[in-house]
Amino acid sequence: MAEEIFNVKKDKNPSEWFTEIIKTAELADMRYGVKGFLVFQPWSVESMEKMYYHLEKNLKKRGHKKYWFPTLIPEKNFKLEGKHVEGFTPEVFWVESAGNEKLEERLALRPTSETAFYSMFSTWIRSYKDLPFRTYQRANVFRYDTKMTRPFLRSREFHWIETHCAFATKKAAYENVLDDMRSTKDVVFEVYGVPTLVFQRPQWDKFPGADNTYGADAITPSGKVIQQPSTHMLGQNFSKPFNVTFTDENEKEQHAYLTCYGPCVSRIFASVVLTHGDDKGLRFPFEIAPLQIVIVPILADKEPKVLVEAEKLKEKLEEEGFSVEIDDSDKRPGEKFYYWEMKGVPIRVELGPRDLAKKKVLLYRRDTEKKKEIAIKDIIKEVQKNGEELSKNLKKEANDNFKGIIKDCKSIAEVKKVVGKGIARANFCTCEMEGEACAEKIEKETGGEVRGIRIDTEEKAKGNCIVCGKKATQVIYIAKSY
Amino acid sequence: MAEEIFNVKKDKNPSEWFTEIIKTAELADMRYGVKGFLVFQPWSVESMEKMYYHLEKNLKKRGHKKYWFPTLIPEKNFKLEGKHVEGFTPEVFWVESAGNEKLEERLALRPTSETAFYSMFSTWIRSYKDLPFRTYQRANVFRYDTKMTRPFLRSREFHWIETHCAFATKKAAYENVLDDMRSTKDVVFEVYGVPTLVFQRPQWDKFPGADNTYGADAITPSGKVIQQPSTHMLGQNFSKPFNVTFTDENEKEQHAYLTCYGPCVSRIFASVVLTHGDDKGLRFPFEIAPLQIVIVPILADKEPKVLVEAEKLKEKLEEEGFSVEIDDSDKRPGEKFYYWEMKGVPIRVELGPRDLAKKKVLLYRRDTEKKKEIAIKDIIKEVQKNGEELSKNLKKEANDNFKGIIKDCKSIAEVKKVVGKGIARANFCTCEMEGEACAEKIEKETGGEVRGIRIDTEEKAKGNCIVCGKKATQVIYIAKSY
Repeated sequence: MAEEIFNVKKDKNPSEWFTEIIKTAELADMRYGVKGFLVFQPWSVESMEKMYYHLEKNLKKRGHKKYWFPTLIPEKNFKLEGKHVEGFTPEVFWVESAGNEKLEERLALRPTSETAFYSMFSTWIRSYKDLPFRTYQRANVFRYDTKMTRPFLRSREFHWIETHCAFATKKAAYENVLDDMRSTKDVVFEVYGVPTLVFQRPQWDKFPGADNTYGADAITPSGKVIQQPSTHMLGQNFSKPFNVTFTDENEKEQHAYLTCYGPCVSRIFASVVLTHGDDKGLRFPFEIAPLQIVIVPILADKEPKVLVEAEKLKEKLEEEGFSVEIDDSDKRPGEKFYYWEMKGVPIRVELGPRDLAKKKVLLYRRDTEKKKEIAIKDIIKEVQKNGEELSKNLKKEANDNFKGIIKDCKSIAEVKKVVGKGIARANFCTCEMEGEACAEKIEKETGGEVRGIRIDTEEKAKGNCIVCGKKATQVIYIAKSY
Repeated sequence: MAEEIFNVKKDKNPSEWFTEIIKTAELADMRYGVKGFLVFQPWSVESMEKMYYHLEKNLKKRGHKKYWFPTLIPEKNFKLEGKHVEGFTPEVFWVESAGNEKLEERLALRPTSETAFYSMFSTWIRSYKDLPFRTYQRANVFRYDTKMTRPFLRSREFHWIETHCAFATKKAAYENVLDDMRSTKDVVFEVYGVPTLVFQRPQWDKFPGADNTYGADAITPSGKVIQQPSTHMLGQNFSKPFNVTFTDENEKEQHAYLTCYGPCVSRIFASVVLTHGDDKGLRFPFEIAPLQIVIVPILADKEPKVLVEAEKLKEKLEEEGFSVEIDDSDKRPGEKFYYWEMKGVPIRVELGPRDLAKKKVLLYRRDTEKKKEIAIKDIIKEVQKNGEELSKNLKKEANDNFKGIIKDCKSIAEVKKVVGKGIARANFCTCEMEGEACAEKIEKETGGEVRGIRIDTEEKAKGNCIVCGKKATQVIYIAKSY
């Protein structure tokens, strides 16, 4: 019997499982030699490219235009918004020389690009007729994060999309922020199969320079959260120092309201891996699998007839837009099966001389782990159908895992029992700045962080804050985060 | 009558034309505030994204796997290959601090990624069975170019693809280099419509660290050349310091042969603009147009019936994968026509109430500047057909311009008359290092550069070198370059 290539109990130790699957499936290589920088390998890159495709499609549908901005931001621009510079300065990589010359002005390696975009917005936006003005770019950004780095989850260079939008009114800006969150749910759950909760973050945890920050949290089967895309209501905080103004309908000069949104694809990919993987390895929803179908010729694998048919099948499937590979290596079939299951390929097609004689193939599904015989002539239809079913199935499983993970807690002691294994929900004084002391107490005593108040559902606080005992005004969620 | 938005005689002053069209068509904004760094705007970005798509498709078909490497390269790796570091050091941007700390080791902002890839190749490649090993990444790179910067043509951050491949033999590596050049011609001419000549560069003009460099040159209608993708035969120059070895079939340790190839998309885009544009503005081949079809509702443009039909047409065309916009702005039709012609949209569809009544629309083509009436039911077929014809037509025109641009020259004086307006062809002593003095004389006296010897056609030298009078061994091409 062929040996299994991967068998790590995911439920027992999700962290170890994650580290091991990154190596075994060749998702990323950590041996590059610069702390926090890694090499993303083809198996993660192809999946993340598909993830980008769906995010960008959604943004374009919502009217965002694509730009490529410079990676470097002049220090004087970077420093224009006080809170922003204060928040980001400890994390900025600086370019200080070029060739053998010292630069006249230091250049920041963008940790995020508000200060690059808004310096141009002031040039491009003139009148209310130019608004709403919706832009985005796909980019890599750099942060000198001093916490422990972890591949995909926390690294010093990461791959994301950032949108930057300008509006005439606060209301229009706020609607855009809600729309960002709605479409996050659409893509992240509907396409990637990762369920999320959507929060307004506490005031002490917002983006430097924002009035408010909203963020989605994915919940891994183990009960920890992974921060998903955030969107920031910047109000007029940036439009004032950057002079982003427009002439309104009454010919009056006004400052625009700005918003920004940052889905971090390399981090969402970690949620995909952690949400769907099992003890055998990776599993991917059909739409974002790096490879959708692998064809394994059986027994007489070098027999021309079987290989010719495999090639024909591949071509036929590729014409329909599926990604397909034939594994005609020298390995035994059992080894091939284990390998591609570990890699998370949704559908395997096996064909041997006997199948061929019957004009049939075997179709194996990674989610159900079952095989069935199908007629070659039905292959397109069957692949399409099974691909859709698999994605639906993974989503259902993820949602089921989600249930029961939120526990109502009436005291810090109860919160302590929950966090790490689940999400605690509790009554709380306030997520305004006055509540920070209570949140710090929670974090110190339980290891969990206050994630904020839900905006995707309405919840009313009852009774008193579980920390200070004052009248509760909000329902908060507390969790450990990756 | 509507006013023309753009009317610059391209033949008279191509440089001025290029500068003006970048502004008027909003291809890039140079007001970012850091020398050599510009903001690429949606109209160029969408076209370049399509250009990337075709290049990547070709690379994948040839077995290249996609990676994302870090942007930063540690100084010690960067310095491993002597000639490479010597060639690139004057152009490197250095990251020297992060947060408030000085970094222990300086990090180079990649000017190119040989030293990043090959440090990993040494980890990944073990046996002859791993070869050929073909990789690529799409990336932005940084060079502190001290020459005058020009948008798209020469900037300090540019957008390219770089491939890095390893082979067991020199022969296999050389075949790959030729394949790079063949596929360059395939994509750059067949899809982008830009004709090129392919050269082996003189020894004094090769990539730092290469045995030989091969490069394609596009020739603009004005007779100057624009360097297109180059490919480099690195031999074992990098595999030795980076320890890229494999065990051969006889269990002997060998150094691999490496090649790299770098199509610079933002620069090829300049060739597309300069090759196809005319006095009215941009023209794009159908496959890489930022927008393929614009629908202009006529006269009763706010009449619901016409707009409803326009929306229906848009949807129908988008379903087939075409990119489509409706211009329902308040401008007069004539203004809209000029605007979209300047923007280079290949096909315009006009429809008004009278057309609707006849179930027809008018289809305008940017290349022929002619309109014809077509039945609405035939729209998909007609758009497809006209798109293909337009691309073919632009290619033919570009090829025709190409003809007669190469002139045989028998003396430096003759070369001087040709360069700037065309390409000089001449007999030459040698493109080995011994010939450098002759090349320098040519450059000094004519302003033209020796581009190398052709590898896409066979040419035999006759007589003597036009400079030193020694027996000629090679036929060279001399041109001014952008």
